[in-house]
Amino acid sequence: MFEITERIVRCQQQGRKTLDEAESKRLLAAYGVPVVADRIATTAGEAETLARDAGFPVVLKGLGSRLTHKTERGLVKTGLHTAEAVREAFEAIRTAGGGDWEGCLVQPMIKGRREFAAGLMHDPQFGPVVMFGLGGIFTEAIGDVVFRIAPIEESEARRMTGELSARDLLGYYRGEAAADADQIARVLTGLSRLAMEHPEVREVDINPLIVSQDGRVTAVDALVILDENQGGDAADDPSDPPCQARATGIQAALDAMVHPCSIAVLGAARTPTGGYPGMFACIRDFGFPGSLYPVNPNAEEIDGVKAYPSLTALPGPVDLVIISLPAHLVPAALRDCIASGNKNVHIFSSGFKETGEPEGIRLHGEIERIAVQRGLHVVGPNCMGIHVPESRLLTWKAAPAQSGPLAFISQSGGHAQDFTCYASSCAGLFLSKVISYGNALTLDSPDFLEYLGEDDKTGIIAVYLEGVKDGRRLLRLAAEVNRKKPVILLKAGLTESGARTVASHTGSMAGGESIWNAFYRQTGVIRADSLEEMAETAMALHYLPKWTGKNLVILGSGGGIGVAAADSCAKAGLNLPALSPSLLEELRKYIPPAGNMIRNPIDAHVLLYKLELMGPVLELLSMQGDLDMFLFSLHFDWLHSMEDGGHLERIAEYIATEARQHTKGKPLAVAWRQYQPNPAIRQTRKKVERMLIEAGVPAFNGLERALSALAKAEGYHAFVGQSD
Amino acid sequence: MFEITERIVRCQQQGRKTLDEAESKRLLAAYGVPVVADRIATTAGEAETLARDAGFPVVLKGLGSRLTHKTERGLVKTGLHTAEAVREAFEAIRTAGGGDWEGCLVQPMIKGRREFAAGLMHDPQFGPVVMFGLGGIFTEAIGDVVFRIAPIEESEARRMTGELSARDLLGYYRGEAAADADQIARVLTGLSRLAMEHPEVREVDINPLIVSQDGRVTAVDALVILDENQGGDAADDPSDPPCQARATGIQAALDAMVHPCSIAVLGAARTPTGGYPGMFACIRDFGFPGSLYPVNPNAEEIDGVKAYPSLTALPGPVDLVIISLPAHLVPAALRDCIASGNKNVHIFSSGFKETGEPEGIRLHGEIERIAVQRGLHVVGPNCMGIHVPESRLLTWKAAPAQSGPLAFISQSGGHAQDFTCYASSCAGLFLSKVISYGNALTLDSPDFLEYLGEDDKTGIIAVYLEGVKDGRRLLRLAAEVNRKKPVILLKAGLTESGARTVASHTGSMAGGESIWNAFYRQTGVIRADSLEEMAETAMALHYLPKWTGKNLVILGSGGGIGVAAADSCAKAGLNLPALSPSLLEELRKYIPPAGNMIRNPIDAHVLLYKLELMGPVLELLSMQGDLDMFLFSLHFDWLHSMEDGGHLERIAEYIATEARQHTKGKPLAVAWRQYQPNPAIRQTRKKVERMLIEAGVPAFNGLERALSALAKAEGYHAFVGQSD
Repeated sequence: MFEITERIVRCQQQGRKTLDEAESKRLLAAYGVPVVADRIATTAGEAETLARDAGFPVVLKGLGSRLTHKTERGLVKTGLHTAEAVREAFEAIRTAGGGDWEGCLVQPMIKGRREFAAGLMHDPQFGPVVMFGLGGIFTEAIGDVVFRIAPIEESEARRMTGELSARDLLGYYRGEAAADADQIARVLTGLSRLAMEHPEVREVDINPLIVSQDGRVTAVDALVILDENQGGDAADDPSDPPCQARATGIQAALDAMVHPCSIAVLGAARTPTGGYPGMFACIRDFGFPGSLYPVNPNAEEIDGVKAYPSLTALPGPVDLVIISLPAHLVPAALRDCIASGNKNVHIFSSGFKETGEPEGIRLHGEIERIAVQRGLHVVGPNCMGIHVPESRLLTWKAAPAQSGPLAFISQSGGHAQDFTCYASSCAGLFLSKVISYGNALTLDSPDFLEYLGEDDKTGIIAVYLEGVKDGRRLLRLAAEVNRKKPVILLKAGLTESGARTVASHTGSMAGGESIWNAFYRQTGVIRADSLEEMAETAMALHYLPKWTGKNLVILGSGGGIGVAAADSCAKAGLNLPALSPSLLEELRKYIPPAGNMIRNPIDAHVLLYKLELMGPVLELLSMQGDLDMFLFSLHFDWLHSMEDGGHLERIAEYIATEARQHTKGKPLAVAWRQYQPNPAIRQTRKKVERMLIEAGVPAFNGLERALSALAKAEGYHAFVGQSD
Repeated sequence: MFEITERIVRCQQQGRKTLDEAESKRLLAAYGVPVVADRIATTAGEAETLARDAGFPVVLKGLGSRLTHKTERGLVKTGLHTAEAVREAFEAIRTAGGGDWEGCLVQPMIKGRREFAAGLMHDPQFGPVVMFGLGGIFTEAIGDVVFRIAPIEESEARRMTGELSARDLLGYYRGEAAADADQIARVLTGLSRLAMEHPEVREVDINPLIVSQDGRVTAVDALVILDENQGGDAADDPSDPPCQARATGIQAALDAMVHPCSIAVLGAARTPTGGYPGMFACIRDFGFPGSLYPVNPNAEEIDGVKAYPSLTALPGPVDLVIISLPAHLVPAALRDCIASGNKNVHIFSSGFKETGEPEGIRLHGEIERIAVQRGLHVVGPNCMGIHVPESRLLTWKAAPAQSGPLAFISQSGGHAQDFTCYASSCAGLFLSKVISYGNALTLDSPDFLEYLGEDDKTGIIAVYLEGVKDGRRLLRLAAEVNRKKPVILLKAGLTESGARTVASHTGSMAGGESIWNAFYRQTGVIRADSLEEMAETAMALHYLPKWTGKNLVILGSGGGIGVAAADSCAKAGLNLPALSPSLLEELRKYIPPAGNMIRNPIDAHVLLYKLELMGPVLELLSMQGDLDMFLFSLHFDWLHSMEDGGHLERIAEYIATEARQHTKGKPLAVAWRQYQPNPAIRQTRKKVERMLIEAGVPAFNGLERALSALAKAEGYHAFVGQSD
């Protein structure tokens, strides 16, 4: 190992950014990568001798630290079967390499049609990332590549290779033996170790990694790129290790901010603007029971409450200072916090680096310096801050006063409001804590996740993220917390152009979609693609029993729907298993053929007219060992037309009570199809949904959304079960 | 050509299903496929001589009509550099081939790292299909394959290769010349011609089709499979060519059924069952003005209307007979139709082959024989039939009486009702004609498409399809009609398990997703994945001006939304171009930095408070040549909170009137974010949506759906523009 470090150091001293191929392979070999044996020849005669030693056919490659794009430049000659061919190739390469040529590598020709690639990359948010994918000419043209954030263990490496689209090539394939899975896992874990032990290695590219006919794996070409500016980004900056004392301080501060006894509002406005009444009015109107101090040097009182000229004029430090001033007044306000002994701050103000304007960026730098130097705990700027029903704390106009099991960490203030509204009104879930934190000046998503992970009142954590400064800390905490309680993450900016907007919005670089896929895989965190999906997945997690198994039976009516169900199940990753002939025989006793189709989905009007037939049908289905969950797919409008909603209410009541007795504790959910915008129908829907959810039966708007939520909930239980 | 046909015939006479490699290549060469030169050797000495002639290195392959899986069985030896190696290979292949060995093919070794595959397949709905994709060991493992339904012309062949995910490999790639595009197009059009001229050729597999370093294309291996049961399926059965007289008869019959003066209902029920009042009551209640005859041998009158014992008892034939009887009575009812001179029939009844039960399948066969032999025009069975507001014809409970430009052809009766409801209440579009046709006994989707294509009252045609009997006719008609008016198709059963359900539902085999992708590409028909998407795409097509260009500017508020917009645009295939620095400079004069972000999306609260600023901003944006459309992304709930919806109405009015004057005729649409289930909010929304749509501004529920509809509408205009 000393030798390797020395080589890297020497290379860096020479101002080189890459190790040459021979050096790269030696380094990788030390980390368990099976590299092809090669020797360096500096004369044609030497090349011939080495070729005879290696055994024909051989490969010759130009060697030189400045020699890149070797194939395109004609610096690689393969399939050399004779001494004469070797000499010719040697001369051709020397000529093509010109002044950059330093020698020729001679290596035996490794045969194998299956070429892969492995490597290391550096992600600005997550640091070193291990890569595995299709190799040879296909790496870029096809892009079948999988990532993992380092470090990874062997089991993770094996899961990783299993995610390749072309994974069939790794098994027994067209007469060739399966690739040596141990060897590939060693390559990937070796790369991971290399990244951990040598942070100065920025990138590694092993391509091709050839799988021979007998399954052996050999790295035939490799390139190691060194870091130009070590420790340049936050993700792997070791200068600020997570300090236990500081972390404890943050958690205590968050606890005070979330359950404040006293709040001061700087910039408490007298008159509402643009429909927004202001922080002070919102908190007061929501019934905050503690001390609420307006701070305003230009006012004696705000809305009848005595105003203070500055924080120092208050009786003492408060649990939470809210700054709602124009951006240019925020630095002075932070100094006022420091002078008055206040550390817990929510900056509502916007106009900082999110604007992309020079002045905003300058101001951001200024408040960041103040906050970091003096150890302020800042939520924001550019956000709605904290909403806690239990503390009667709300910074916007309206939200339910009721508490529930769902917490929300959101980088967007708009999403904080929308999600709270949607979850409570459409997914039967009230909130425990909502933290909108915008630009993340000092406190970032990992801090909130850590806090909510320990919060007894929180059972499920939803997160809306645009970016994160310390991706590795987020990864570690998300994995830890998710094992205790489900974490659902909506990541914005996954697409390339989305990433561009995110960068401008919060100033934090967004990682590419494939890196975030790795994040989801490694942590088991549930992926959501919209606020609605996040709320509905939380509903499935909260109200349904824990279960695993992807086999679904759907009961309902309408053939077109059955087809949609099958498509949607396939998309969601659930199965609609065929019912056995003997079960079909039994079911036929209750369901006549005309107008009803006894398959899966079971499309039977009659079961909805004559509810007394439903019990025996559910009993029969429940006895099938391979059915894991039940979904009723119901046409709301059509059922509502019977007895003005009366029959629909009867069906809902049946599902909420009797049906559950016949389904042996297996999860049971409802999906509506509802198109009529009729207010009476909406009212009935609200009513029956309440009835169902109170009985623990979630109802979803449409099949697709039901299936997505069920699949995600099941995926969570399966992941946690596996890692137990 | 005579020689080829003779060979095929001989091969069939010998009971062989495949041509051997040499025969296959000769056949393909005659259709313009560049095949590798090869010769047959039956002794090792002959092989050696042929190898010397071809030039080393060579390839030896076992030849024999029963020799399959050659690679796996060791019957292919590549890279043979010496005479000795050729002899050894010859003996090894002879041994491995055993009794199936008939000789060895000797061919020069074609070098090239880029391997593709081309071929012909047979789809049960569409007949011969041309295939192109990645070749070699990757064909199955990666599945990067594109299809076209034959016949195809050169331009279509070129579009086809451009759809390959790995299409970069066809261009200049890593020092190798671009593949000869003309040659590849000739291969694909040649395969298409072969399929058309030799229907007895069922499959062709050319793999690999090697692209050499200089770009030349060579078919190195090929296999031709012959049809076992020629003309076995409907798609390419030439025994029933579309007869002009018959087609004219169908169109006239449809015209009568869609505008009936007289209707007879068999099985007019006295009492409603399961909430459904029955065909007779529905038609009467919707105000059908013509003669409506209940037919029922067991009743004197139905609801006060004189009943007739049979169709023959009526004054004469009617324009439409509706059969609403139990399945087992339908054959007799059809005979009654024939006896009474009635030809236009809608069979509402279910209980036929869609049940999968033996009795249903038998009955289906029986009514099919009657209907086909006697030339009945049957809509159904197992469907809701025809709804035409203009004719006051409706077979379900409620639908708007107003007519509009949108027609719907639906294989599902439930979807017919839901789509009519959704389009009229949520997409501002009333229906011209709705045809629900279920099992398609005699009349199928192509018949309806042909009729509506000529219908002056129909401007846009939406189609929900589970399967089709004559795929090629659908293809031809869809392409023709779509050039005149947009056709939007929702195809169920695209996924494998979806296809299984469709097969059981309508009894028609559903083609795989990749074949239907070819259908969409070749016809330009717009793909939709839900009823909602279909209605909303129709809304964009109907209300927006025709335009092309994918560059969008979004105006609205809320940073989190901006990020979602960028992700959603990328997903929908639209662009959010960056605004030029000079434009940004100009915009800054109207939009202050704090709380507003001047990018694309333009996230500016201030423009929504102070509408007077919007005009100059829209003017500036309109002058940007590269912006093709405008989208307002508005938070409904939040805007509604200002003046109890008053300000929101002002904004909508502004968009409906003034905004359109500043946007230079470019398309302008609105996307709401709306989460509050509050009835007052819903009412305002309905009101402002009406205001907007009357002004030609469609409003969508959420960004994703707006972008999807805009992208699909633009895609249609671009396709039609190109093919003009």
